[in-house]
Amino acid sequence: MSRVATLMNARPGALSFLANSRYRKHLPATQATAVLLAPGDAESCKVAALIDPNPYLAYAHIAALMHPQNPDAPGIHPSAVVADGAHISASAYIGPNAVVEREAHLGDRVVLGPGCTIGAGARVGADTRLHARVSLLAGVQIGERCIFHPGVVVGADGFGFAQDAGTWVKVPQVGGVRIGNDVEIGANTTIDRGAIDDTVIEDGVKLDNQIQVGHNVSIGAHTAIAGCTGISGSTSIGRRCMIGGMVGIAGHLSIADDVVVTGFSLVSASIKQSGSYSSGIPVEETKAWRRAVAHLRRSGNKE
Amino acid sequence: MSRVATLMNARPGALSFLANSRYRKHLPATQATAVLLAPGDAESCKVAALIDPNPYLAYAHIAALMHPQNPDAPGIHPSAVVADGAHISASAYIGPNAVVEREAHLGDRVVLGPGCTIGAGARVGADTRLHARVSLLAGVQIGERCIFHPGVVVGADGFGFAQDAGTWVKVPQVGGVRIGNDVEIGANTTIDRGAIDDTVIEDGVKLDNQIQVGHNVSIGAHTAIAGCTGISGSTSIGRRCMIGGMVGIAGHLSIADDVVVTGFSLVSASIKQSGSYSSGIPVEETKAWRRAVAHLRRSGNKE
Amino acid sequence: MSRVATLMNARPGALSFLANSRYRKHLPATQATAVLLAPGDAESCKVAALIDPNPYLAYAHIAALMHPQNPDAPGIHPSAVVADGAHISASAYIGPNAVVEREAHLGDRVVLGPGCTIGAGARVGADTRLHARVSLLAGVQIGERCIFHPGVVVGADGFGFAQDAGTWVKVPQVGGVRIGNDVEIGANTTIDRGAIDDTVIEDGVKLDNQIQVGHNVSIGAHTAIAGCTGISGSTSIGRRCMIGGMVGIAGHLSIADDVVVTGFSLVSASIKQSGSYSSGIPVEETKAWRRAVAHLRRSGNKE
Repeated sequence: MSRVATLMNARPGALSFLANSRYRKHLPATQATAVLLAPGDAESCKVAALIDPNPYLAYAHIAALMHPQNPDAPGIHPSAVVADGAHISASAYIGPNAVVEREAHLGDRVVLGPGCTIGAGARVGADTRLHARVSLLAGVQIGERCIFHPGVVVGADGFGFAQDAGTWVKVPQVGGVRIGNDVEIGANTTIDRGAIDDTVIEDGVKLDNQIQVGHNVSIGAHTAIAGCTGISGSTSIGRRCMIGGMVGIAGHLSIADDVVVTGFSLVSASIKQSGSYSSGIPVEETKAWRRAVAHLRRSGNKE
Repeated sequence: MSRVATLMNARPGALSFLANSRYRKHLPATQATAVLLAPGDAESCKVAALIDPNPYLAYAHIAALMHPQNPDAPGIHPSAVVADGAHISASAYIGPNAVVEREAHLGDRVVLGPGCTIGAGARVGADTRLHARVSLLAGVQIGERCIFHPGVVVGADGFGFAQDAGTWVKVPQVGGVRIGNDVEIGANTTIDRGAIDDTVIEDGVKLDNQIQVGHNVSIGAHTAIAGCTGISGSTSIGRRCMIGGMVGIAGHLSIADDVVVTGFSLVSASIKQSGSYSSGIPVEETKAWRRAVAHLRRSGNKE
Repeated sequence: MSRVATLMNARPGALSFLANSRYRKHLPATQATAVLLAPGDAESCKVAALIDPNPYLAYAHIAALMHPQNPDAPGIHPSAVVADGAHISASAYIGPNAVVEREAHLGDRVVLGPGCTIGAGARVGADTRLHARVSLLAGVQIGERCIFHPGVVVGADGFGFAQDAGTWVKVPQVGGVRIGNDVEIGANTTIDRGAIDDTVIEDGVKLDNQIQVGHNVSIGAHTAIAGCTGISGSTSIGRRCMIGGMVGIAGHLSIADDVVVTGFSLVSASIKQSGSYSSGIPVEETKAWRRAVAHLRRSGNKE
């Protein structure tokens, strides 16, 4: 087998998989040469079945073998700008028009895509890859084997202002950002530096695109968060949580380990017990919805 | 007439238009030299009336004539970095500090703004303009006459991970992105590459700023989506839909043609019929709102 | 004292502060050398108390003194691309790989971070700092002492299209953007140019990360807006408002001065009186929530 394919679009020579029951209907007619699937699905498979209790995980491993990433030849592209006093491993690759400021440290086999900007004193661990146009601000610390997608910004100032007679006075943001190993961060996600202490992202955290992480947030190991979610400052999220897309999480909260929050929910108080939490309301026809909102509003006004 | 103006701020010499009834009150006193308007509004117009059944469309065409875009002189700015083996039309313009990787194809009269990054093998059709700092990842395909605003990222990895005993294993994202003709994409919008098959944006789609499009999404021709909306992976949206701002759309859904979703709504199940759908709740005073929420919560707990 | 610290993590030699009652419990045991606090908290303070009625404001001023920003030496980095006819103050600093187009004006002590792109005719006032990869489009006007964080885009086209028999025709966006003095804008926030008149951000406005500001919006002086909020076109927001995170604000509205909107709310009608407004619903356990939604839906259907 030379490639991977979905059950529906597979042609002979392709490896496919069945991991989501929505797609079970495509199994009987698939033209894949072989299908990774769970034991219970083997009977419906008319082609070679590769049985695994976690077929999606098996697929992840096999697909990585079938699609090896070309290693980048080490070196610094002549158009990159590297300040005196930056420490760059001889095995690192610095892409075109990247900028590395003074005292930055880039570890072994680090890859910087085109247009990345690495602030003074920032540190990037071995085997981490920053795709195009990622910005790390001064002093940010990144672990090993991380992947940051284009447009990520780590270490910009948090949103801190003090009131002074109707105007705002900036509160210096003097903390840093520490990101562990094996963290993946999606395109255009932003992670602010701490106001005083650091913002912390632990090992194995996976963040989707366009997530906003406020200053002094901490996110526990192996938590995964879907796109467009926003986390306000000083909130602490536990380990192995799964947070849906477009969730809003208020500041100064504590969320326990193993919490699930479904998409489009608002978390405005701490969550002390693991479990699944929601507040999203699915659409209905606009006319019926307007009646429901009117009812809800009356119920609040009459009490 | 030498310029366009709003009804309220127009001075003699300006062309204005009336297309939204909210602004009808400004018609009688406008100082515009002429006003594009629908037949029913002609009577209230004290200046020259240019009558058209679709005055906003007429305005769009006339404003484009009055504000022609300066064509960019073809050429490659000396600070741009173009890899050997990239195919660039002699009529294209490559701006300062742009980066074009190997085997990329840029068609006739393509314009790349400053700081764009074009991945290996990406293809951009004729007359497409990428403003500053747009990133296309490897292999992405873009049609003709498209406009992408600054910070757009097309073709970053989708959010795909398999569970392995409490940790996450990356699922290689080996699909691509195919974008049709006449597509406009707003600033800092992100469109992920497919996991296996491609993410597809059909002809004439208009996406506003800061929209997130997950892997393997398809968006049908001439659909328009307002800012900050997020679309989870593998969802299919029909043709000519109008999706409001800050809408959350879950994954693996199918939305019919000609569906309207009003802003700040959650779509968590497929929509099989055209029509208008909503779940946003407008604000009221915080105290009254808290009572309504308490009532809603009790209603759920007591049943 | 040589540094600032939180009450909980302070060591001798550090200055701390108490401004949020959530953290009062850490006051008795703090190891800070001195603590800024309000008169009512002095009694619980076992170390030196610096008493101020607004301790957070006092902290902001003192922290700025203790963490002075290194002034950038003036000059234009040799890798920057500056067009003929750009006007750059001799005291400005233009970072690596920045691009400044023709007729742009950069005032005294302006700092452009690496990879910024400044469009033709854009103007930036004295002492304004653009961090890495900020893009100003043609003709945008920025005041003095502003701070823009990485990835900000100001002046991209607004989302304006006219319907033509099921397809969309682009409406030229010929207005500009005017931003006052002392404005701070967070990472990856986008502010569109006006359709005809300008988009306007008044003095002292503070915008967090990933905010979307549509065309022809105006935001009154000293208004602060938290992350991920979206403001649709032609809406006018008053002075000194405080808008929470992930708020959706529809277009063509008017919001009075001194309005507070709590996070995750939808504003779909004008707000004529100052006060606090909400429509966010906090999460509860998913099972209970589903019952509440079912109840709400029935209430709409039966009326």
